[in-house]
Amino acid sequence: MPGASVDLNADLGESFGVWTLGDDDAMLDLVTSANIACGFHAGDAATLARTCRAAAERGVRIGAQVSYRDLEGFGRRFIDVPPDDLTADVIYQIGALQALARVAGTELSYVKPHGALYNSIVEHRDQARAVVEAVHAVDPGLAVLGLTGSALFAEAQRVGLRTVAEAFADRAYRPDGRLVSRRERDAVLSDPDEIAERVMSMVSAGRVTAVDGSTIQISVESICVHGDSPGAVAIACAVRDRLAADGVRLEPFS
Amino acid sequence: MPGASVDLNADLGESFGVWTLGDDDAMLDLVTSANIACGFHAGDAATLARTCRAAAERGVRIGAQVSYRDLEGFGRRFIDVPPDDLTADVIYQIGALQALARVAGTELSYVKPHGALYNSIVEHRDQARAVVEAVHAVDPGLAVLGLTGSALFAEAQRVGLRTVAEAFADRAYRPDGRLVSRRERDAVLSDPDEIAERVMSMVSAGRVTAVDGSTIQISVESICVHGDSPGAVAIACAVRDRLAADGVRLEPFS
Amino acid sequence: MPGASVDLNADLGESFGVWTLGDDDAMLDLVTSANIACGFHAGDAATLARTCRAAAERGVRIGAQVSYRDLEGFGRRFIDVPPDDLTADVIYQIGALQALARVAGTELSYVKPHGALYNSIVEHRDQARAVVEAVHAVDPGLAVLGLTGSALFAEAQRVGLRTVAEAFADRAYRPDGRLVSRRERDAVLSDPDEIAERVMSMVSAGRVTAVDGSTIQISVESICVHGDSPGAVAIACAVRDRLAADGVRLEPFS
Amino acid sequence: MPGASVDLNADLGESFGVWTLGDDDAMLDLVTSANIACGFHAGDAATLARTCRAAAERGVRIGAQVSYRDLEGFGRRFIDVPPDDLTADVIYQIGALQALARVAGTELSYVKPHGALYNSIVEHRDQARAVVEAVHAVDPGLAVLGLTGSALFAEAQRVGLRTVAEAFADRAYRPDGRLVSRRERDAVLSDPDEIAERVMSMVSAGRVTAVDGSTIQISVESICVHGDSPGAVAIACAVRDRLAADGVRLEPFS
Repeated sequence: MPGASVDLNADLGESFGVWTLGDDDAMLDLVTSANIACGFHAGDAATLARTCRAAAERGVRIGAQVSYRDLEGFGRRFIDVPPDDLTADVIYQIGALQALARVAGTELSYVKPHGALYNSIVEHRDQARAVVEAVHAVDPGLAVLGLTGSALFAEAQRVGLRTVAEAFADRAYRPDGRLVSRRERDAVLSDPDEIAERVMSMVSAGRVTAVDGSTIQISVESICVHGDSPGAVAIACAVRDRLAADGVRLEPFS
Repeated sequence: MPGASVDLNADLGESFGVWTLGDDDAMLDLVTSANIACGFHAGDAATLARTCRAAAERGVRIGAQVSYRDLEGFGRRFIDVPPDDLTADVIYQIGALQALARVAGTELSYVKPHGALYNSIVEHRDQARAVVEAVHAVDPGLAVLGLTGSALFAEAQRVGLRTVAEAFADRAYRPDGRLVSRRERDAVLSDPDEIAERVMSMVSAGRVTAVDGSTIQISVESICVHGDSPGAVAIACAVRDRLAADGVRLEPFS
Repeated sequence: MPGASVDLNADLGESFGVWTLGDDDAMLDLVTSANIACGFHAGDAATLARTCRAAAERGVRIGAQVSYRDLEGFGRRFIDVPPDDLTADVIYQIGALQALARVAGTELSYVKPHGALYNSIVEHRDQARAVVEAVHAVDPGLAVLGLTGSALFAEAQRVGLRTVAEAFADRAYRPDGRLVSRRERDAVLSDPDEIAERVMSMVSAGRVTAVDGSTIQISVESICVHGDSPGAVAIACAVRDRLAADGVRLEPFS
Repeated sequence: MPGASVDLNADLGESFGVWTLGDDDAMLDLVTSANIACGFHAGDAATLARTCRAAAERGVRIGAQVSYRDLEGFGRRFIDVPPDDLTADVIYQIGALQALARVAGTELSYVKPHGALYNSIVEHRDQARAVVEAVHAVDPGLAVLGLTGSALFAEAQRVGLRTVAEAFADRAYRPDGRLVSRRERDAVLSDPDEIAERVMSMVSAGRVTAVDGSTIQISVESICVHGDSPGAVAIACAVRDRLAADGVRLEPFS
């Protein structure tokens, strides 16, 4: 596929105080977009500052990985936050990361909801609208990363936000195009070669095999690789190499 | 004192979730500068958003009231935060409030440290420098409110930040110009007329009586009235009226 | 109704740090059972210690008001906590309050889930079981307060926990016997006389009028009056007086 | 030293949600006493429950590792908590862990303050007394682990609590017998053989070499090995083997 390109994103800045998660420096050498936590599910301010600087040094683009306020659950538990409160929470988080990014000499380019919020606003119209209102209010030039067909994208497109369709390198898909929940077995794939081959299929053919064996269509402008999986760096390398082998360049989404 | 003017500031946005503190709307009708909490000692994001909007509607200037991360202690307990972490914490807080302020159609003008941080950086050089670095990195046009002669002011002036000397309407002073600790009796005054008279003396003569009866010199560009004291509104009204009676206008510091 | 008696309970200890909620001392003079917060939705440890002592001094029985971990939302937002984590959270909370109660010279008698957890485990079987497992594991002699017909009661009865059927003095009921959500208007009643009359009907006839005007059956061993409503003390007094007028004594459930 | 014995303790249960710290299972196979976190500096409730069960299965004794409330700083930052609040915080933490321990079929035997609280109450008389009051109020049969000569020990002995003198296998000592602060280089030793030899000298001769090369006297009933250092398991093994080589048995303190 000469001439083709795709963005590669990962969740970073997800350490908290004494606790570290993932190998941010190694991942920053591999990805083109860094979804940096904003303190609500992970990321003390010093970690976020350091991650912003490391991304800026490498010219990796930064997005705000906004979340429910839930350190204990790492943002992976649905919380029934009233929409107005959620809008304020998201503005707060974007603003905090924006300041850290600017101090590091760079700027936020996009917002990617995290964990349970990500999953919830595939369907939850009120929370999707709350997130979109927040992003749009802070800066209508920010893009949102998410799933094609989600309530998030419907709301974002309604107000004119740029949407970037994302696929997950190492997550299992349901036949309806949603992700298999992390609480189920087989939700996360681990074999680097299998993952790389899946990604190649997503990028080149817009197709991926769901858990039931069926083939589903999938839109891809950005591929998400997880930074905190065991073997995350190996997986990201395998994906990069596989794409390069077929002439697909890694580039930030435009 | 025809022609004279002074700024009147108060700590606002200090509710948290279901818990309310102070009467922000009433205070916003009286003050010229609002020190709005940033979520670390008080202020859930929805409260902060609401307070920013209410200040913007009235044309009251907004400052970021940054704090140690300490909801349980309301930021009133010294925490031995390493300077680099403190710098990141302060950038994070300013950024969060900045975004909420912008969404409300206004901008931050200044930063005022809160509680134990305020008191600590009167003397604590490393933490003072950490705060100043944060403010300067986010925006060198931001002013800092604090005590004349403090380490905060020394550090701020070193990097060229505008310093605004503040006096407290309802707090007792030690003979060395520091505040009597809230853990001591008589730290906080409550009689509106006495407070108003004290403020008049501060503004017109640059003098206030310390707890030991001695008279101390005090610089005043801004007067702080507390928003959460019982009778806060009555005190702020008394101060306004007393100043007006002698022709002192309330105006934001320049 | 000479000879009849009912328990009167209220949520107490719900201040947090500098923020106060309700008038615990006044309520403790009126109720027979105190549902004391455990720190997850409200209640710093010093507040809880003080409330336990105040209850012990008056011989008011103490229950642990366990919650989702959610200070910002005051425990009023559903959180999709995995059952095993919830069991551990509930044991943790009960243990913390148990120690504070013992130091105050008293003992826990029961557990009452708070807010969104209370509402969730009316139907949510897995979370209901998780709570029951926690209570039973700590002490099978503890009772649980809740709604008749709830999953909580089904699970509690399965393992032999004593269940105490509760009715809400000042909350509107749906025709199916559930509470109207606090996010809807008219969820909370405020007129003391109307509330007192409702309670009398609940206690004497086991009946209450739902929001749609229909009459529903209701089991009552304990009446909950809110400690944090405006007029909470007036409401509790009105309820006491109304019950006394018909000879119903207030007594802890047996 | 045939017939001699010493206790070996480690800090465990210090993971939080998704973040893991240390290899608790491996350490529990090596130590005789487990200082389990209580949620204030580390340890979500599910982690604590699991760690209590793992300790109970191996017959390892459990102590409550109480801390300032400071997840972000891992309890390593001094907080100027008023003594009454600190007493309540410590009762709360002990109670929470006590319930989890009982559900796991075991009991707390002792309390060991963590991090900055540990260091602070070497000298800080008011906070030392606050901790001792809490421990004594919950159960006067609980021991306290700490440094000989500390304010903690003075206060504990005043009310009759059993004190257990502890030495640190892998921490550098100042000539006055205090620990070198973690913020300084060389605060933590890492060579297993050197550490094992130090411990042998502490146990057999009551002596250790301070950072300035001087020899200081040290009382040892229990040796602390850190569970979260890189190489923690290797260090603990080396210590065990070195002690065994000279016939020193590892046994819980009596």
